[in-house]
Amino acid sequence: MRRALELAAGRVGSTGVNPAVGCVLLDADGTTLATGVHRGPGTPHAEADALRQARGRSRGATAVVTLEPCDHQGRTGPCSRALIEAGVRRVLYAVPDPNRVAAGGARRLAEAGIDVVGGVLREEAEAVLEMWLTAVRTGRPFVTWKFATTLDGRSAAADGSSRWISSAESRADAHALRARHDAILVGSGTWRADNPRLDLRHGVVGQPPLRVALDARGELPPDSRLLDGDIPTLVVTEPGTGLTGVDEENVLRLKTDARGRFPPLGLLEALGTRGVRSVLVEGGPALASAFVTAGLTDRVVAYVAPLLLGSEGVSAVGELGVGSIGEAHRLRITAVDRIGSDLRVELRPAAWTRGTQ
Amino acid sequence: MRRALELAAGRVGSTGVNPAVGCVLLDADGTTLATGVHRGPGTPHAEADALRQARGRSRGATAVVTLEPCDHQGRTGPCSRALIEAGVRRVLYAVPDPNRVAAGGARRLAEAGIDVVGGVLREEAEAVLEMWLTAVRTGRPFVTWKFATTLDGRSAAADGSSRWISSAESRADAHALRARHDAILVGSGTWRADNPRLDLRHGVVGQPPLRVALDARGELPPDSRLLDGDIPTLVVTEPGTGLTGVDEENVLRLKTDARGRFPPLGLLEALGTRGVRSVLVEGGPALASAFVTAGLTDRVVAYVAPLLLGSEGVSAVGELGVGSIGEAHRLRITAVDRIGSDLRVELRPAAWTRGTQ
Repeated sequence: MRRALELAAGRVGSTGVNPAVGCVLLDADGTTLATGVHRGPGTPHAEADALRQARGRSRGATAVVTLEPCDHQGRTGPCSRALIEAGVRRVLYAVPDPNRVAAGGARRLAEAGIDVVGGVLREEAEAVLEMWLTAVRTGRPFVTWKFATTLDGRSAAADGSSRWISSAESRADAHALRARHDAILVGSGTWRADNPRLDLRHGVVGQPPLRVALDARGELPPDSRLLDGDIPTLVVTEPGTGLTGVDEENVLRLKTDARGRFPPLGLLEALGTRGVRSVLVEGGPALASAFVTAGLTDRVVAYVAPLLLGSEGVSAVGELGVGSIGEAHRLRITAVDRIGSDLRVELRPAAWTRGTQ
Repeated sequence: MRRALELAAGRVGSTGVNPAVGCVLLDADGTTLATGVHRGPGTPHAEADALRQARGRSRGATAVVTLEPCDHQGRTGPCSRALIEAGVRRVLYAVPDPNRVAAGGARRLAEAGIDVVGGVLREEAEAVLEMWLTAVRTGRPFVTWKFATTLDGRSAAADGSSRWISSAESRADAHALRARHDAILVGSGTWRADNPRLDLRHGVVGQPPLRVALDARGELPPDSRLLDGDIPTLVVTEPGTGLTGVDEENVLRLKTDARGRFPPLGLLEALGTRGVRSVLVEGGPALASAFVTAGLTDRVVAYVAPLLLGSEGVSAVGELGVGSIGEAHRLRITAVDRIGSDLRVELRPAAWTRGTQ
């Protein structure tokens, strides 16, 4: 199962609407016959991939899969039937399929006389599948909010200068984080101030996420790096707003609220219908605040640099509508790593318990 | 030497102007004859303590000491002579004595025909002696600045409420940190707002540090907990200011600068002449800022709680006179620990290199 999980983890962020799943086929002696992995919609599921690699030697084999085999005819056939037809004798899987359309594979396998065991290394597998599981359970994409801060909570000095607060190692890690998401979201303040590329650099390889730029008033300049055509960019604007240099198919039209802001949940749901299962919120403070106050942040990744800029510096986090300590947004630290000269702190909402949401 | 260092580490913060030193006496077979530790001015040095415990069995022994044996007749006799007279054959020590008055012990021992090796586990020993070594080398007390902050750099919510930002475990750790210092320093904003006791609680045992309260205008109320008499308190005020309920021997008179603030270096030097070798700066933001901007912070201990209070919250760190990123106060992280639900991050000035300052 650990090998299957490794295979799956290597695919997180590059399987589109589908989960990153890994499969290992073992013969009666426990020797690996083949491994398989899912590479995204329209390509074989991990089980089918492994069965194909095994080239007919699967009779009597054990299939170890990170997610319950599907029982659903989609763009590819149901894995349950493929495993039955291949003569597999035993199936171990980690996480039951929460997707009602595809679930039922375990039962069908058992009905066919196959020995089925679920829940193997379930916790580890849920961590690998976290983003996809959250998306399936909540009906909206998983949201990671990433920000860089000094030890005293600043993102820039008093004059706005900020290059570089984080170390080169942190910046590279942030690009690797990008690669594990389907989309990167930035507000108008960020593209206006930084003209970012939002691509994968620092030696990170993988499928670059969809770039999503909020632009209620249609002011994104046609020479913006976000419109360079190298990576798809979705521009989110108001219905009726004219946009220069953007094909209509790359425009998402959504109404803003009374304060002229896109409602975070509506935005996520609209991205979900376009196949986005995970969103990295990169900036700036107003956008992040909107997601935090809406309770729509599933994970926070903070790069804390050992610098002090003083209270005259620019706050890394914006206003959160917290009047008193009882209203604080409470998180829990789920991982801490030293990375370059910085700390990388990963947090989840305090109430969040894996598997119950 | 590790045993000697453990003995020394257990005494940090309770030896007054003297260093915390440990000594182990071994016989020719390497069996421990006796251990000794220094308990503060007027009590035997670690070597003398160990020799006394050995009750005359020290002939031919090896003495392992964390600091070069002194060669100075102070309130107690020179350890170099005591070791020679006891017939010790070999002396291993970790750190050479940087104190010109007391140095020379190693040479005297060697001249008496004793086999002397210095620099054993020097780095570990310098860590134990860090505060005292800094005090001797710089001529002023070692300064630790401790603060608690949320992940977004706040010490309280918008309405000033802050109980509790840090976890109970962090608060207990902060009391253990107090016990390792000679004095705790607070500004007038802190005693005015919090009426703190600045004692040792949360199960921490040890010698409570001297409480030092800044009070330029003589406004510390006589019923302040700092004047409860349980632990000595030094009140720092302007020359000529009248103080109610404070004996003159517990008053330090120092001129303030043009902005009505006590100059940090002058304050430290005055504390140094009163035997203080280490100061814990506990609050508030103005006081901490004065020490940071003066470059007088040898160590920073930050308790980072996984909370977000937003930019409307109270900044944990005050103004630092940083206009642009190039002027940032740069630190380096020297330790990170998870403590309760929080992070404890220990930092040193970026330019600080152990043993060279």
